[in-house]
Amino acid sequence: MTAILTKPAEQVRDHEKHRLTSVTGIAGLGLDAIASVAYGPEAIVLVLAAAGSVGMGATIPVTIAIVLLLLLLVATYRQVIAAFPDGGGAYTVATRHLGRSAGLVAAASLVIDYVLNVAVSVAAGVAALTSAFPALLAWTPELCVVVLLVIAAINLRGIAMSARLFALPAAVFVVAVLIVVGIGLIHGGPVHPLPAPTQPVTVGSVGILLVLAAFGNGCAALTGVEAIANATPSFRKPRQRRARTAEAGLGLLLGVLLISLAVVIDRYGARPVAGRTILSLVTEGSLGNGVGYVVVQLSTVVLLALAANTSYGGLPVLAAKLAADDFLPHVFGLRADRMVHRYGVFVLAALSGALLIGTAGNVNILVPLFAIGVFVGFLLCQVGMFRHWREVRGRAWRWKAAFSVFGAAMTAAALLVVTASKFLEGGWLIVLVLPLLVVGFTVVRRAYQRIGAAIDVDAMPAQPRRTGCVVVVPVVSITRLAAESLSTAMSMGDRVVALHVAFDDETEANRKFAERWQQWRPDVPLVMLDSAHRTIDEPIVRYVKSLPEGRVVVLIGEIEPTRLWERILRNRRGAVVARAVGRRTCAVVCRLRFRLT
Amino acid sequence: MTAILTKPAEQVRDHEKHRLTSVTGIAGLGLDAIASVAYGPEAIVLVLAAAGSVGMGATIPVTIAIVLLLLLLVATYRQVIAAFPDGGGAYTVATRHLGRSAGLVAAASLVIDYVLNVAVSVAAGVAALTSAFPALLAWTPELCVVVLLVIAAINLRGIAMSARLFALPAAVFVVAVLIVVGIGLIHGGPVHPLPAPTQPVTVGSVGILLVLAAFGNGCAALTGVEAIANATPSFRKPRQRRARTAEAGLGLLLGVLLISLAVVIDRYGARPVAGRTILSLVTEGSLGNGVGYVVVQLSTVVLLALAANTSYGGLPVLAAKLAADDFLPHVFGLRADRMVHRYGVFVLAALSGALLIGTAGNVNILVPLFAIGVFVGFLLCQVGMFRHWREVRGRAWRWKAAFSVFGAAMTAAALLVVTASKFLEGGWLIVLVLPLLVVGFTVVRRAYQRIGAAIDVDAMPAQPRRTGCVVVVPVVSITRLAAESLSTAMSMGDRVVALHVAFDDETEANRKFAERWQQWRPDVPLVMLDSAHRTIDEPIVRYVKSLPEGRVVVLIGEIEPTRLWERILRNRRGAVVARAVGRRTCAVVCRLRFRLT
Repeated sequence: MTAILTKPAEQVRDHEKHRLTSVTGIAGLGLDAIASVAYGPEAIVLVLAAAGSVGMGATIPVTIAIVLLLLLLVATYRQVIAAFPDGGGAYTVATRHLGRSAGLVAAASLVIDYVLNVAVSVAAGVAALTSAFPALLAWTPELCVVVLLVIAAINLRGIAMSARLFALPAAVFVVAVLIVVGIGLIHGGPVHPLPAPTQPVTVGSVGILLVLAAFGNGCAALTGVEAIANATPSFRKPRQRRARTAEAGLGLLLGVLLISLAVVIDRYGARPVAGRTILSLVTEGSLGNGVGYVVVQLSTVVLLALAANTSYGGLPVLAAKLAADDFLPHVFGLRADRMVHRYGVFVLAALSGALLIGTAGNVNILVPLFAIGVFVGFLLCQVGMFRHWREVRGRAWRWKAAFSVFGAAMTAAALLVVTASKFLEGGWLIVLVLPLLVVGFTVVRRAYQRIGAAIDVDAMPAQPRRTGCVVVVPVVSITRLAAESLSTAMSMGDRVVALHVAFDDETEANRKFAERWQQWRPDVPLVMLDSAHRTIDEPIVRYVKSLPEGRVVVLIGEIEPTRLWERILRNRRGAVVARAVGRRTCAVVCRLRFRLT
Repeated sequence: MTAILTKPAEQVRDHEKHRLTSVTGIAGLGLDAIASVAYGPEAIVLVLAAAGSVGMGATIPVTIAIVLLLLLLVATYRQVIAAFPDGGGAYTVATRHLGRSAGLVAAASLVIDYVLNVAVSVAAGVAALTSAFPALLAWTPELCVVVLLVIAAINLRGIAMSARLFALPAAVFVVAVLIVVGIGLIHGGPVHPLPAPTQPVTVGSVGILLVLAAFGNGCAALTGVEAIANATPSFRKPRQRRARTAEAGLGLLLGVLLISLAVVIDRYGARPVAGRTILSLVTEGSLGNGVGYVVVQLSTVVLLALAANTSYGGLPVLAAKLAADDFLPHVFGLRADRMVHRYGVFVLAALSGALLIGTAGNVNILVPLFAIGVFVGFLLCQVGMFRHWREVRGRAWRWKAAFSVFGAAMTAAALLVVTASKFLEGGWLIVLVLPLLVVGFTVVRRAYQRIGAAIDVDAMPAQPRRTGCVVVVPVVSITRLAAESLSTAMSMGDRVVALHVAFDDETEANRKFAERWQQWRPDVPLVMLDSAHRTIDEPIVRYVKSLPEGRVVVLIGEIEPTRLWERILRNRRGAVVARAVGRRTCAVVCRLRFRLT
């Protein structure tokens, strides 16, 4: 998961001492990676348990393979930090070295990752919660939606959380897991008895396909290792050295946690139990199901909620970047109060909410999808680094390039494995959505280029010139509102025309209006428009279209009541006319709000 | 239920031959009354069955009492037809003779009735459907909502149904019920065996309270008898004679149906069966459960759907009338395409939908509430008629006045009985909502009077005068859009100022803009506004407020893309600025849509 901090632009401007050290960098930016410990090992065990105890024996080898891939990725991203000191995720690397199309693929995979990170983290957090409080299990989808809405609401209010704040829950979680596995490693077996597994024990053979599927599934544990490389500018000087140290530290920490967890799972003989996470089983084996157990589960919940939160810092910023490059509608670049990219937050919440509801908050369906998206990014990054070394050359560049090729081959293999093994279980969704997103970016860009050409964005347009102008003022009745509207119109145009829509079933009222107008003598010609169907917009539109002047302004006066509730008293005629005139004519629509005092 | 025809205003204008005769009047306007046969007798039986077979013995006497009340009401409404040839429901009579407050009470009771008519008719229609197809029983609330949405959608599209169209289903229903009761009366007992009652047979005593409760509940069978009097102008000439004949015919028909149904229920010993309507039990007793049974049930469903539909003709027209008198927000007077009072239709669907969902489509909760609202209208109408006779005098006026007093006393007694017996089972809702509606009408009216006074609605306002005017044009970049906006502004104002919001983190872009402006030389002063927080609305609002001119116009140019989907590409900056300026300043907001060609 490419975690960019909640407010990168501001943080860059912040004072040096507010920036990250290696240690706070691991906590703040490594949050997603550390959080994946909560669902990564589980993803492996769930596949292997299908082959009974024989299958479970493969837990440690599969985990070692994943940790080797982890070391490969960490080495790659340390290279990326060195090569892109301004921060470069797969998007930057791919755009720079593989061209715009590859960059768009990387961007699309990032969008998918951000959405899946929210869905997976929320679902895994709720799973940790229901493991501690089984009574809540039946409410899983509802709890997921509530957590999602709370996180989205916090981000809509623009409450930024600093990396430092993240350090505490991350540290609590890491220490807790280390204690749990420490007890297990020392004791050599469960201290407290584990609940009986609910899956029927089949003594299947451990085929190569099963091991590959477990490997692919477990790759979800590697999500998030790229975050530090993306945010190099957030570190204190010397930035690159600190970032490289943080990346190595994160890799080490994650590797230790994964391997030791795999060993303890193996020693405890932990097997899937319905309604329980594997981490909660291991914790129970070490600490029993007392206070310690609840503390570990709750720290997991908090960590996963924070991991979900990082997407809200990332996706809206990425969307704004894409919007600035014309690949997404410009509304994503719009910031509301408190600098929030409101549209990005909305879209992220809506998409991840749809995923959570669609899968009923089931972590095990979501995790493999997540791995697919993330590995697309890894692959592009490594291929890009190969091109980078070939271009930049420098000391031992051939070795570095060869390493990138090797890494790319490994990542491609992992990507192939996870996609193939999970294609029918939802993988097709990613395979479908990724190219659709790329096509979408391209279509949007083309439309903006067409619009830009139409308004002479590059050429110098003709100079503005003054021309004649007629101001049309619909008048309902002769009041101070009408007087104010006509005064404004007279100040605006060379020629002013007052319009009164006369319903044909109200002859008496129409006669009275004309009479009162005669008495008023406002020095403005009055045009009475017949309306056979009591519509107000139709006759006005027809009149505006019939005017000979090229430049027509329609001025609509509306009363703005003093009290808020009185707004429901407005008749919305102004809105109806404004909409019809704006849509169906070329006239400029002016709205005058007449405030009652 | 005061059924006004779907489109009364148009119908009045229609040619004479399109108007109602006595017979089509009974079908078209008596629909609600006839439809109440589907739930009225059931309401009686449900209360009495609580006292076992002894209680059931009271079915015929209670029905006779209700039919006597029916005759009283029919006589009253024949008087109303004579006295108010322009059509007058409780609202007209009460307003004319009892003052505005009584009129508002009548209006509030009408609003409640319209809403409850929809809820009761839909729920009873679905009950008839699930009686025929028990598999649908579990889906009762969902079916209610679907039926409601379909009826609302038809009315939003403005598909008017003529009274003639209503004649066929009403006739089918009446003939079907007459056949069913005819067989019962001739045979003297069930031809086919009835299913066993599901209510435990308690042999309770038949207290006076039980009988009163059954009477009150059964009064729901009388809803709708006032509809003909409300719509006298819809009849062919001689209108009053035809309307009086129709009213008498409707009363006769309804009376015959109610009494004969009661006798057959008694002969068949029909008792409540879960998931079945009483009418469906009686039908099964006469025709068995073959094709005939399904035909009767389906004709009931169609009739009840049409009965619900009449509210959609009535409430929006009443709301528009109240809005014209300033008692409701004026939006209710607004007609959309095809002359539909869209807001009225929305509000009716929302309120009756809430009732249906809140009661899970249970007819037996809704029916007594309906009776309460309707009887408030009956009472006001009769008291009003008493005043009318005292005022008008004429032949034998004392007798007529005495009759009205007697009718009012009977109606008041019935109202008291139904309210008291059903107060805890939802009656409180009506007792609460009715005065709240009246208070709401009054508050809205006062606000309109205050607003009217503030804009000199009655006095002659000052004559409009031309004054100086500055036009402010926010410019984002130098394009054809900017040129067009500035040209329009120059044609509109004495003084034009171009504004450019400069984000403080984009110094390079700002410098380039200023440079390009120099090259363009548009003969308009440019003001660069600093924005520290990348907001666009804040600096513009501050600038507009700082201007010395009294009359400020802010002209916002926006691109209107050619294709519909391209609308999502608009950046909404114009909307953000327009909203902020409109809300926070006194400036006139003008929006220029620049169409790409």
